[in-house]
Amino acid sequence: MEIIKDPAAFQKQSQAWRAEGLRVALVPTMGALHAGHFKLIECARQMADRVSVSIFLNPIQFGPNEDLAKYPKTFEADAAGCRERGVDAIFAPVPGDVYPPGFQTTVHVDGLTSPLCGRSRPGHFDGVTTVVLKLLLLGQPSVALFGWKDAQQLLVIRRMARDLNVPVEIMGIEIVREADGLAMSSRNVYLKPEERREAPRIHKGLEAARKAFQAGERDTDKLLAAARKPIEECPLMRIDYLEARSLETLEELKEAKAGDTLIAAAVFLGSTRLIDNIRL
Amino acid sequence: MEIIKDPAAFQKQSQAWRAEGLRVALVPTMGALHAGHFKLIECARQMADRVSVSIFLNPIQFGPNEDLAKYPKTFEADAAGCRERGVDAIFAPVPGDVYPPGFQTTVHVDGLTSPLCGRSRPGHFDGVTTVVLKLLLLGQPSVALFGWKDAQQLLVIRRMARDLNVPVEIMGIEIVREADGLAMSSRNVYLKPEERREAPRIHKGLEAARKAFQAGERDTDKLLAAARKPIEECPLMRIDYLEARSLETLEELKEAKAGDTLIAAAVFLGSTRLIDNIRL
Repeated sequence: MEIIKDPAAFQKQSQAWRAEGLRVALVPTMGALHAGHFKLIECARQMADRVSVSIFLNPIQFGPNEDLAKYPKTFEADAAGCRERGVDAIFAPVPGDVYPPGFQTTVHVDGLTSPLCGRSRPGHFDGVTTVVLKLLLLGQPSVALFGWKDAQQLLVIRRMARDLNVPVEIMGIEIVREADGLAMSSRNVYLKPEERREAPRIHKGLEAARKAFQAGERDTDKLLAAARKPIEECPLMRIDYLEARSLETLEELKEAKAGDTLIAAAVFLGSTRLIDNIRL
Repeated sequence: MEIIKDPAAFQKQSQAWRAEGLRVALVPTMGALHAGHFKLIECARQMADRVSVSIFLNPIQFGPNEDLAKYPKTFEADAAGCRERGVDAIFAPVPGDVYPPGFQTTVHVDGLTSPLCGRSRPGHFDGVTTVVLKLLLLGQPSVALFGWKDAQQLLVIRRMARDLNVPVEIMGIEIVREADGLAMSSRNVYLKPEERREAPRIHKGLEAARKAFQAGERDTDKLLAAARKPIEECPLMRIDYLEARSLETLEELKEAKAGDTLIAAAVFLGSTRLIDNIRL
């Protein structure tokens, strides 16, 4: 496994693979890899001749009051986990090589970025789409894999790739959860023990909405009330958003439709902001 | 020579060429081809194994009160001119295939787009960078050629390609002029005979600035005054801008520096807006 820091060298390696006719998969990450990332890598390994993992804590997707500075960094463990799973190349650039002096280009997706995390984190998705486009052009993958935990991110990136004719398939991979239901996240390490004990309530709420849907309920007010209950019962939790939206357009839904309903939540547990979702 | 309308078919063709190890050149145009475009195509032909020309009148780079509707369309002559010069493929999509329903992505370059045409034509360069990135990703060129007449456009596109790690060389080709000095432009056909007679004054002004520079003048106020004179002497002309700027950053220059000075003009002749420039 190669560890490549220089963007030009990574692109050259990627182009050489493509010139040989090899199928390349890319898994973009910000490091602090957990079982969710490793599932992406394992899926990538099944689908491609060469697997690249990018590890880049992208400063431009963090707001001024967000957790960029304290975001966990576990490069040695990340690299070991990648090596074990047969990754061919880790691309781990420094910010100054990704955004050199004079850098002034932004990739913006419009409608899909307005609600949910886009409302709570202004500018966040511009940072995401800009870096992901760069990673796609450097890594030259025919498939790039993202977790469904960041559902809006997945939809925004898929839209961007399609709108800009990037020749890549954007693949979503199912959320990986802890035994108690908490969605895997690099940010879970921020939780104090008493917060960690309560954290599965988010998943519990979402599953309550799913059960109500399966029992025939279609009114999203009622589905969301079911989801809200276990979360609101916990005094440590504060809901940032909990909404039912179309999986296609992210428009708000009054009535849930099988195959096109995303119920997405962002919840503060103390100062830690966790997101999770289900698709109906 | 193939004429391809479907973006996916064009991308597939381009990828097939690259997979064979062929060097591909792309000349993006809006049609109404003239000797300036043909020079780009001839240069492309010298440099690459396969030459693609895109002919697409890009609606999103026109403002609401601009000349999109009346822009000249000469597809048959354009195609004949391309065929004569050994072009391998013309990509001529319809707007609905370039911007299908739901399209919502914009590529924005910041500082370089603020002055000059960016100030006169808000949103223009977002339209340019968005379509050019799409064309680069569809056409997969290792080199794309643009005329120096649209100097700011060339600098903005070069910046965009570099910032986003597009694996392409953006090459600028010298302005082609009519015998009397008027820069070739698809918009010259708008000029009434009496306007056409006066039009070379723009070039004459720019050349007066060059002569003053060659004689040792470095104060850009004086260079611009020399450039302005023949233009202001013509009652049919109204200067939109006439400025001296750094070729690197497009910052305004008080003092001209050899190798880093652009003198750029936009002039209304009646209702027709013409641009031209020189580099010192």
